Amino acid sequence: MPDPAAVPPRAVFFDIEGTLLHDGACLEGAAEAVSAVRGAGLAVRFLTNITARLPAAIARALTDHGIEAHAGEVLTAASACAASLRRRPGCRVHLLVDHAVEPLFEGLPRDDHAPHVVVLGDIGARFTFAALDQAFQMLQRGAELWALSRNPFWFNDGRRQLDVGAFVAALEAAAGCTAIVCGKPTIPFFQAALDSVALAPDEVLMVGDDISTDVAGAANAGLACCLVGTGKCTPAHMAQAQTQGVTVLPSVAALPDFLRQGFPALDRPRQFH
Amino acid sequence: MPDPAAVPPRAVFFDIEGTLLHDGACLEGAAEAVSAVRGAGLAVRFLTNITARLPAAIARALTDHGIEAHAGEVLTAASACAASLRRRPGCRVHLLVDHAVEPLFEGLPRDDHAPHVVVLGDIGARFTFAALDQAFQMLQRGAELWALSRNPFWFNDGRRQLDVGAFVAALEAAAGCTAIVCGKPTIPFFQAALDSVALAPDEVLMVGDDISTDVAGAANAGLACCLVGTGKCTPAHMAQAQTQGVTVLPSVAALPDFLRQGFPALDRPRQFH
Repeated sequence: MPDPAAVPPRAVFFDIEGTLLHDGACLEGAAEAVSAVRGAGLAVRFLTNITARLPAAIARALTDHGIEAHAGEVLTAASACAASLRRRPGCRVHLLVDHAVEPLFEGLPRDDHAPHVVVLGDIGARFTFAALDQAFQMLQRGAELWALSRNPFWFNDGRRQLDVGAFVAALEAAAGCTAIVCGKPTIPFFQAALDSVALAPDEVLMVGDDISTDVAGAANAGLACCLVGTGKCTPAHMAQAQTQGVTVLPSVAALPDFLRQGFPALDRPRQFH
Repeated sequence: MPDPAAVPPRAVFFDIEGTLLHDGACLEGAAEAVSAVRGAGLAVRFLTNITARLPAAIARALTDHGIEAHAGEVLTAASACAASLRRRPGCRVHLLVDHAVEPLFEGLPRDDHAPHVVVLGDIGARFTFAALDQAFQMLQRGAELWALSRNPFWFNDGRRQLDVGAFVAALEAAAGCTAIVCGKPTIPFFQAALDSVALAPDEVLMVGDDISTDVAGAANAGLACCLVGTGKCTPAHMAQAQTQGVTVLPSVAALPDFLRQGFPALDRPRQFH
């Protein structure tokens, strides 16, 4: 029986890796779940901390896997970062980001000596001592450090590999600064996604597999959220989420049924720990 | 008038950079201070976090500057680290240290896949993504992380440059571990120096310019200490040290007078903050 207090969502925000795709393949029922959300007249957004690809390329990859997606529906940490920097008149930047996403920053003046902002993404083998020490010099001259994510590692071919967050920690330790993180779980990132659908937090459901970025981020921004048991989610994460009023679904394939039940008993825990 | 409660020291431990030498030159009165300590019959040790040179090379550099020093009197983080590792039977190591100090680790079995210990020193331009990610894989396989220091930067040609501590922070963030630090300010390092002169903590005076490594380390190991106002020392450091009962001298040149006054009112603050 539907919960009389429940309000149906008007949009669903999906995480991608671990929620819709995993290890290069589409998760069972993912395409159908996104279709069902669209079919019910809800807006769809894809919120990802992937730092090395453009929204259009991410939408294409989803479509190649049978999941309908459009470039304008994809929000990445890099696109949110570039949008924020553009709102600062005259902001000069030093970019340490994957070459593929550099076009997002087009038009922003570059400064490789004393920029206002150093933008740090995952640059893999380009994380050299020289590049990091140059960034450190800029931070000492007063630049802010903006990071596309704080993930210290990511899963590559089944093994954990160092990610941008490790190098953020290195620069923070040396410069005595605290990075501004652009992607999930920050509230401005979720706010940008809400702005793109012109909805309030309590009108949107976030669906993701990562308790620290998807669930905590959405909850702290006031969104309802579902944790799916695919990807990074562990039994301990499920138990933690349930304790704090987050709905746990075995996978995104269970989402259509969940929505058909009238969005039952969906708490919006704020200040998720 | 000498403090009747004061006990004269039987050894003096000197920091090197910022205390005896600075920016490649000998500080005024440094050679005379070391001579005066020797002339009074006290033992001398040089305790340094320099990670890229052997004790013999450091002693030679001091001698070249007119400061009498012998290799056996120099304790570095690398020499202390190697000595500790030798006390573990069969301990296999992966070395990320300056080539110059590798001879200190001779005889310890190497393992570049699943070592017991990853030793991290300052390797400058050899801090590559590949080297750090390889160390990260080893930490995930259960290796301990031993760091020759936690200094996040050092002064090179008058500017701050990234040091090993920044990369320690990166690996700790990724692997969720805490590094074992081999040099100052750790108590085992000071204990190794005390062992080398066969004295108790309250028989030794530490002289250094760094409040977080020299002074805090010595104080927490139970040694009396003097902060000298050369090198890294700031007016804020001086004020902090005096509040906590540490003697502040303008430079090491004032040490002979200080000792002639009968080691006056020298507190031994423990748990220095």
